[in-house]
Amino acid sequence: MSSLYQRLNQRIFESDSHVCVGLDPVIDRLPNGVSKDLNGIEQFCFNIIDKTASHAAAFKINTAFFEAYGGDGWSVMRRIFAHIPKSILRIADAKRGDIGNTAQRYAVSLFDDLGADAVTLSPYMGRDSLTPFFERNDRGGIILCLTSNSGAADLQLQTLRSGERVFESVAYMIATLHADFGNCLAVVGATRGADIKAARNAMPGVFFLVPGVGAQGGDVKSVVRYAGADVLINASRSIIYASSQSDYAQQAAIAADALKHDIEEALHNELR
Amino acid sequence: MSSLYQRLNQRIFESDSHVCVGLDPVIDRLPNGVSKDLNGIEQFCFNIIDKTASHAAAFKINTAFFEAYGGDGWSVMRRIFAHIPKSILRIADAKRGDIGNTAQRYAVSLFDDLGADAVTLSPYMGRDSLTPFFERNDRGGIILCLTSNSGAADLQLQTLRSGERVFESVAYMIATLHADFGNCLAVVGATRGADIKAARNAMPGVFFLVPGVGAQGGDVKSVVRYAGADVLINASRSIIYASSQSDYAQQAAIAADALKHDIEEALHNELR
Repeated sequence: MSSLYQRLNQRIFESDSHVCVGLDPVIDRLPNGVSKDLNGIEQFCFNIIDKTASHAAAFKINTAFFEAYGGDGWSVMRRIFAHIPKSILRIADAKRGDIGNTAQRYAVSLFDDLGADAVTLSPYMGRDSLTPFFERNDRGGIILCLTSNSGAADLQLQTLRSGERVFESVAYMIATLHADFGNCLAVVGATRGADIKAARNAMPGVFFLVPGVGAQGGDVKSVVRYAGADVLINASRSIIYASSQSDYAQQAAIAADALKHDIEEALHNELR
Repeated sequence: MSSLYQRLNQRIFESDSHVCVGLDPVIDRLPNGVSKDLNGIEQFCFNIIDKTASHAAAFKINTAFFEAYGGDGWSVMRRIFAHIPKSILRIADAKRGDIGNTAQRYAVSLFDDLGADAVTLSPYMGRDSLTPFFERNDRGGIILCLTSNSGAADLQLQTLRSGERVFESVAYMIATLHADFGNCLAVVGATRGADIKAARNAMPGVFFLVPGVGAQGGDVKSVVRYAGADVLINASRSIIYASSQSDYAQQAAIAADALKHDIEEALHNELR
């Protein structure tokens, strides 16, 4: 079977897209005409996937929005993963992180039960809490490095005695993991301009999953300028809630296509 | 309703115990006579709870070991939470950590759907990712500070330019959260001797959940010497797998009671 990076590069080549469509649906924001329950969430996600798939390199499902509905929510989430075409990367945005034997159980949960190709991970417990997610060549992990929220300043942006910031130290750990396993990505938020450059310098060749464009104010041009072409740029609310009417899936496709072209244009202008 | 800290202190007083019984069952290690499936896991946990409850201040359920079975595992986990007597603290060891609106969905998942009183959290994304778990006075969060695994050295034990280690900086954030909300605990591993003292100095009055005694080699005496009496000391495998025969629940009770007395003795000898 192809490696995770081979699949990702092939999908980006075929779709000509670096867009990751984020699915984090809440009942209150389901469009008119969609039933305001878990069935409605499932139907909503199916329709979004069907219409946006041709513009997407990846789908990212935020597990919290399904876990809030317990076991039933989990089952719906699994059907949504199964509905995504196999050529497209399926990301479980679960931000797990625990010691070795527990990490192995999370890997079973997210790779085998849920069917994710890649899962987001928290680095706080260190390398031995991460390696269980990298042992399968066709799956992998996406480690939090530099996030787009204000709380990033509390820990990630602190400076170590070595002169590095904490997120840079994490970036070097990610680079080492990627060198060892080959299936490691990093979360690098879109809102932090030049810090993205520091992350890229520490992790050449590592794909970045970039949240924070759109609703959170990040800018595609600066992401591409600093991170280069090895990026998946995620948008969630600006795509899935592009319309609150019955044309929501078509409007989601238009929004995904627009982001795809914004990224293409930025790649053309910033990286020539 | 009583606050989380009131309930915790009352339970410790009533049970005369600082023991947290950790439930992280795997099918391969279920005792003889227990069916080797999810039903067996449920029955096993019910019996362990029934026999150890009188020796326990808290039960800690490791969510990964149930999430590995998808939606069915989640439903079993929920029934296990419901089976724990209400006077005993019910901890979901889930190590969640994500931005505000996602954190809110995790709070719904773990507090409302699952029925946990407290949930373990990762601090990597900072304060705004944590506060949604502290908004209810009768529930709360247990934030990773210093863990007992070898990977703790990769990030937690690094020294900041200020001279603090990363875990001490996190400890100060926890102390601030506790001052603001009153329902904050910290994970401080048993294996790190004098570093426990540094964590205590940074967080006077914050309850520590202490993993790592027993199978991981931590020592009850040194935990109590450095952390004081505001501790929940967790043991998982040394209690739940105390016997592989049909007397497993009785042997688990004996192991929990022995740990309870070890802690009592240490409190008497180390803190007089």
